[in-house]
Amino acid sequence: MPELPQNLFGQIDPPQRLLMGPGPVNAHPRVLRAMGADLLGQFDPEMTGYMNEVMALYRPVFGTDNRWTLLVDGTARAGIEAALVSLLAPGDTALVVNFGRFGLLLQEILHRIGARYETVDAPWGEVVPLDAIAEAARRVRPTVICTVHGDTSTTMAQPLEGIGAIAKEVGALVYVDATATLGGMEIASDRWGADVVTGGLQKCLGGPSGSSPITISDAAADRILNRRHVEKGIARDDIENGAGRMIGSNYFDLAMVMDYWGPKRLNHHTEATTMLYGARECARVALAEGLPARFARHAAAGRAMTAGIRAMGLSVFGDDAHRMTNVTGVWIPDGVDGDRVRLMMRTHFEIEIGTAFGPLQGRIWRLGAMGYNAMRHKVLITLAALEACLQAEGHRLPLGAAVPAAVAAWDAA
Amino acid sequence: MPELPQNLFGQIDPPQRLLMGPGPVNAHPRVLRAMGADLLGQFDPEMTGYMNEVMALYRPVFGTDNRWTLLVDGTARAGIEAALVSLLAPGDTALVVNFGRFGLLLQEILHRIGARYETVDAPWGEVVPLDAIAEAARRVRPTVICTVHGDTSTTMAQPLEGIGAIAKEVGALVYVDATATLGGMEIASDRWGADVVTGGLQKCLGGPSGSSPITISDAAADRILNRRHVEKGIARDDIENGAGRMIGSNYFDLAMVMDYWGPKRLNHHTEATTMLYGARECARVALAEGLPARFARHAAAGRAMTAGIRAMGLSVFGDDAHRMTNVTGVWIPDGVDGDRVRLMMRTHFEIEIGTAFGPLQGRIWRLGAMGYNAMRHKVLITLAALEACLQAEGHRLPLGAAVPAAVAAWDAA
Repeated sequence: MPELPQNLFGQIDPPQRLLMGPGPVNAHPRVLRAMGADLLGQFDPEMTGYMNEVMALYRPVFGTDNRWTLLVDGTARAGIEAALVSLLAPGDTALVVNFGRFGLLLQEILHRIGARYETVDAPWGEVVPLDAIAEAARRVRPTVICTVHGDTSTTMAQPLEGIGAIAKEVGALVYVDATATLGGMEIASDRWGADVVTGGLQKCLGGPSGSSPITISDAAADRILNRRHVEKGIARDDIENGAGRMIGSNYFDLAMVMDYWGPKRLNHHTEATTMLYGARECARVALAEGLPARFARHAAAGRAMTAGIRAMGLSVFGDDAHRMTNVTGVWIPDGVDGDRVRLMMRTHFEIEIGTAFGPLQGRIWRLGAMGYNAMRHKVLITLAALEACLQAEGHRLPLGAAVPAAVAAWDAA
Repeated sequence: MPELPQNLFGQIDPPQRLLMGPGPVNAHPRVLRAMGADLLGQFDPEMTGYMNEVMALYRPVFGTDNRWTLLVDGTARAGIEAALVSLLAPGDTALVVNFGRFGLLLQEILHRIGARYETVDAPWGEVVPLDAIAEAARRVRPTVICTVHGDTSTTMAQPLEGIGAIAKEVGALVYVDATATLGGMEIASDRWGADVVTGGLQKCLGGPSGSSPITISDAAADRILNRRHVEKGIARDDIENGAGRMIGSNYFDLAMVMDYWGPKRLNHHTEATTMLYGARECARVALAEGLPARFARHAAAGRAMTAGIRAMGLSVFGDDAHRMTNVTGVWIPDGVDGDRVRLMMRTHFEIEIGTAFGPLQGRIWRLGAMGYNAMRHKVLITLAALEACLQAEGHRLPLGAAVPAAVAAWDAA
């Protein structure tokens, strides 16, 4: 074993970096401060009180009255897997609305848990028309229609108004991965008719990765509780098992997680208290700002970023009509080395912008403005820095145009 | 939707409570402070640098040279499930060393992931003799021998010296759940011959729940990487899939998690940065104290708690020879209502002590002294408070005996 340095690598001391990529972004300072509170016993009344408050605070964030609105202890991807493994038993069929990397992730998880799936697809940079979803749903008759809301890999936001009616017609439930939009664009779980919606803290909610808010409709809860099989070591007379097939994961068994968050207070995992404190504060910050104001702020940031980019003579990636407000894809101009620009942005300006995946790797940058970073001055700083880096790289572009264009676009309602 | 209170439930403000149950316990203040650092981009060099430091810091904590020593993003239970689902494919056979609730949890998870298992058992309050494990291993010829190290449900610590030789003889790997002992009792992964060991922060490491340190031997890594199937959306030419069966979970796929922590930096989940900062500081606190000093401190705390309990005339639960140093079970005396005493401990003294599970529910209390709370004054305060509560409940006991007995036992080497 190599010797450790005597100072054990020293105190944590990250650079003060502005994270303007597709997430994670800088945490709101109130969130980090809230996470400094000391721990409580798992079933202490103050702790279960905080759990109940988290449930109440996340209902408006999800646009729902759902009783079962809680946290999965893990990153956003943990929430996705918990939803899918709890909703779909092996052999069940899903329909995946697929328009980017995270639609591929849904397929991947479904495959691993033994579910079947079919897809209804759009090319990267577009969204799937609702009538295509309806047509596919009628053909496939899925148990669950699964979709991403905002896919950061393509910067597209799938319209979901009306998806509930399609699902109802074919007797399906709807699952939505809202990781990248929760707290930044409207999530209208009840109005959309989305049964299960999951998110993360590290995007528009301005917290750290590691806790996944989730909301579950009564219909989805019925389906999940029908699969309830309380683990041997904690089985109780007052909790009846369901007739459905046991859920293939213990950790992601939402029936047990609900019984932990509900009045039964089943002893499942030990709640990640500090992450819960953080998630609670994320929702408090968002609700204190007011959700409509918050969505408008993200929209202004996206508008300003897009206008600034275009004023620089660069092209914005993807379908204008369905862009996420909080992440903007930018075509890397011919002759410019995208990674060199990203490196210069980081080393000269302490600003991080994102690279891309799959078919877009090396072809676009992704510029985020979300949560605590969806602010006018941060958009302006990012644009000014990008202009300087492109100039330094020898790319010819109109100088001094991006910032005023962004200011004007921010102020345009 | 019911109206939320105008102050959105107010700032987080938990009571200053001393957590002397079986965990979670109070976090070390240094850990909470470290978690206040701002976030970094997922692949920023400082972030991957911190990941590498975490790997280096946890090797001595686990008593190993294993290259693959990292964090699973979730509670301790997430680490357990990640280990089992990655090591065992459906139909593979495990041998479970079963002596408490967490042995039942191992069985539960194995069942859910489609593995077979047999058990070698001890009654609650005892451990499993090594020759019984050897005999069972020869009979069952398992792929993996799975055991808990310290099972808080029974306060017993399973001796593991020699388990590696047994496994070797039958061609098995060894998995150890060290959630409740990591950082408090010696974990000698390499000397024991344990291939995969997992832990949590919220016990002897004095951090919050929500991150699960794990170490993986080369032999176990070979087995896991042979099951490598990189998800579609992030497949790369430089990462070859294995011939083994795909792991049944995406989130808990340790092959992808290793490729994320390793030089390939595969884009799997978004690391829970704040929890990683906390995990890093937990290890720094432990290593700065020195592991032998830390184990001695936990042993002194357990000795003092046991001596104090006995001086009060109460009986300690379980086999003296194999007690965990950091959790002590106490028989609730006849005529005393255990829950009333716990309530009085909390409401009068702001001290939490634990209840129990399964066959021990209502019959024993569990008193923990771990991490930041394995301190002489905290043990003394707890004993003095318990004495006062028992007296208030009308239980006759020798007054003033517990504290001096505990002091003497603390000081006895």
